[in-house]
Amino acid sequence: MPVQPRTTQGVLELLPAQQIAFQRMLDTVRRNFELFGFLPIETPAFELTDVLLTKSGGETEKQVYFVQSTGSLKQGDTPELALRFDLTVPLARYVAEHEHDLNFPFRRYQIQRVYRGERPKKGRFREFYQCDIDVIGKDNLPLAYDAEAPAVIYKIFTELAFGPFTIFINNRKLLRGLLESFGVAMDKHADVLREVDRLDKMDRAEVEQRVAGFMDPAHAKDLLDLLTAHKGDSRAALAALEKLRADASRPTTATFKEGLDELEQVYSSTLALGVAESALQINLAIARGLDYYTGTVYETFLNDHPGLGSICSGGRYADLASHYTKSKLPGVGISIGATRLFSQLIELGLIKAETRTVSTVVVLNVEAPLADQYLAIAASLRAAGINTEVYGAADKLGKQMKYADRSGAPIALLLGSREREAGVIKLKLLRENREVDVPAVELVARVRELI
Amino acid sequence: MPVQPRTTQGVLELLPAQQIAFQRMLDTVRRNFELFGFLPIETPAFELTDVLLTKSGGETEKQVYFVQSTGSLKQGDTPELALRFDLTVPLARYVAEHEHDLNFPFRRYQIQRVYRGERPKKGRFREFYQCDIDVIGKDNLPLAYDAEAPAVIYKIFTELAFGPFTIFINNRKLLRGLLESFGVAMDKHADVLREVDRLDKMDRAEVEQRVAGFMDPAHAKDLLDLLTAHKGDSRAALAALEKLRADASRPTTATFKEGLDELEQVYSSTLALGVAESALQINLAIARGLDYYTGTVYETFLNDHPGLGSICSGGRYADLASHYTKSKLPGVGISIGATRLFSQLIELGLIKAETRTVSTVVVLNVEAPLADQYLAIAASLRAAGINTEVYGAADKLGKQMKYADRSGAPIALLLGSREREAGVIKLKLLRENREVDVPAVELVARVRELI
Repeated sequence: MPVQPRTTQGVLELLPAQQIAFQRMLDTVRRNFELFGFLPIETPAFELTDVLLTKSGGETEKQVYFVQSTGSLKQGDTPELALRFDLTVPLARYVAEHEHDLNFPFRRYQIQRVYRGERPKKGRFREFYQCDIDVIGKDNLPLAYDAEAPAVIYKIFTELAFGPFTIFINNRKLLRGLLESFGVAMDKHADVLREVDRLDKMDRAEVEQRVAGFMDPAHAKDLLDLLTAHKGDSRAALAALEKLRADASRPTTATFKEGLDELEQVYSSTLALGVAESALQINLAIARGLDYYTGTVYETFLNDHPGLGSICSGGRYADLASHYTKSKLPGVGISIGATRLFSQLIELGLIKAETRTVSTVVVLNVEAPLADQYLAIAASLRAAGINTEVYGAADKLGKQMKYADRSGAPIALLLGSREREAGVIKLKLLRENREVDVPAVELVARVRELI
Repeated sequence: MPVQPRTTQGVLELLPAQQIAFQRMLDTVRRNFELFGFLPIETPAFELTDVLLTKSGGETEKQVYFVQSTGSLKQGDTPELALRFDLTVPLARYVAEHEHDLNFPFRRYQIQRVYRGERPKKGRFREFYQCDIDVIGKDNLPLAYDAEAPAVIYKIFTELAFGPFTIFINNRKLLRGLLESFGVAMDKHADVLREVDRLDKMDRAEVEQRVAGFMDPAHAKDLLDLLTAHKGDSRAALAALEKLRADASRPTTATFKEGLDELEQVYSSTLALGVAESALQINLAIARGLDYYTGTVYETFLNDHPGLGSICSGGRYADLASHYTKSKLPGVGISIGATRLFSQLIELGLIKAETRTVSTVVVLNVEAPLADQYLAIAASLRAAGINTEVYGAADKLGKQMKYADRSGAPIALLLGSREREAGVIKLKLLRENREVDVPAVELVARVRELI
């Protein structure tokens, strides 16, 4: 009895037509990363366990997949290797390890799969692609780099054409400065910001109640009003913040001012990089709860599908690799979770994969004695860069045509003795269901015209 | 004290310039796979253990990396998941699982990493890329497909230009038929062929002695003479085999005749596909010891670096997925071990990575007040498809220039107030160490000319 062929849950395995669509998406991402001069790196799927788990907390650790070869299975110790669960820890390790060979500010992109021991659940993946860019400075990294991430993302999602989208930006210093001026204790900042992050998923009144648990309840409403009042209007949001800065009755802090300056600068630089104002919004309610981020933060939403959540997020951090080096390595980056995004877009019908194909021409095997002719024709098409396959079996033409139809290729090529004597080649346009006879000597040019 | 940033042994992690070179190699492979109409698939890095290990024997099993999440670490059973050790078993599982959704003959390519729990040793990798193509038939697969693999490989290695190379072909039926006519017992065929495979690494006399252990010693010499006499001359080898077929004094078997017919056919079809005769050789001493292969077999060598061994191998097999389905799925395929090949070519100096770069233009930060100008210039270059980065820090020009030099980009772009007033932009050609002032309005066109 054969073993049932199957994969584990939580992986996305695609049929070829979908794989082509997915590959085109990754290619678009990569081409645009390179357009901005980001350099490729790849790291091994597994890291040494002691290196990988330096930084992560308990929750992440539970999701780690450990790796061990047969020989070491029974020893019972923590395995020596573990699969990466993101691309940030491997980047930190990479930059620290190769510090002296890199050119700082170091601009890298990385498009690889990461692994998490998730319990099976719709939309949770155990293996998924991340597409990351980061710029890492040595000792310092000017704010100018914070404008690049949204500019790259704008180019990518414009080209991918999944519909209108908005890149939201905010600044964590600004938020923390605001909390200071509202009298929130330092050790409660993280709590408040975690609650603020719930605003797009939870009822406003409920968030307010939760926030009020960490600060003067009278101020909780004012805070949330300020963070949400100007959603959708960046200039109004900036004006309100400037008014606050000028308001002597409630003095603002240095952190607030620094954050506001940064936000203004990043906003205007991003526009200078050609990002349309309609696709970029200052959104003060984006907090990105992780303490990891220390300045600019980004999230990206498809306007017509807010339920997907942020499809691309990131921000500025103070020090990438403190666990691995004494060098201070501040950075800024953004990440696209390509697997989850792709599976959602397929489900929504925003990516259609049905007609995706690799071959442009399928050369049919019309008469066995002409087999070498077919091979030579295929070679001439390939020499012209036209993707071509040859049907190898002397099957009935109906069966061959069915294969060509299913393949998705736009053109089937037929050459029988009759055509050969006439010096022509028959091209069947499969999507239009019509045929043309073209002179054999013009084959390449005519195929190019037809596609 | 920071943790020492390092990777496990047996992985190939590259600096960006080398990564670019490696990526170009993989891109070339992929483009040519697609030129022949092969369809992409990707499978998860891990398979269910019971599915993955159905087929493999003890030796392979020892090299398997098992995967388990923290929760299941202490249970002590065989872990549920394991990393793939090649792309063939996942292909078999994929084709069996998705059989009804695939278009047969199914032409697939797959470029992914595989994992083996190798002991650390130079040239042994625990993680490495394989680039595989296979054509899988349902019930049967015509011999015509056997000519494609060498044609693809010829295109790829011609384009990669690592120097002259030779694709060797042979046929296992022919070899087994020869052994029959030399009176070797069926159950000794595998032993003899394993010894024959040593001919390129071991002294001929020693191989003969070993072969003589499995057959009539008087015939061992004749056999090896026949297999090696016409190395380098495909037509002479075929002529010798034809002579044998016609020789009534030592009758040949049906297997021999079938193998010879196949070899002749594959050889001539491969030439019809445009492969140069100088790059294709019938080599009767290529046995590819694995019993997996049942007909055509391939190996590929760089003429000037035979010590690298075969850089690309494969062959015809009778049934891909008998462990997973009752359908009979014969196939033919070939595989490039890209990681090992790349690391060897770097070592030999046949791939030079020093000047590889992503950015074409580095826009320097000459005067801080012009920052938005620099961003706009970068946007216009990117809109024209020219990879461009902007130096973000207001550092001294010498430091910026050093960054641009190290980046490998061919052009640094400088715009100060003086240039701005004159309506020009200064382009510094970093590889030629000269400067040109170009009219600002002609920037894109002039950059295109210069690169």
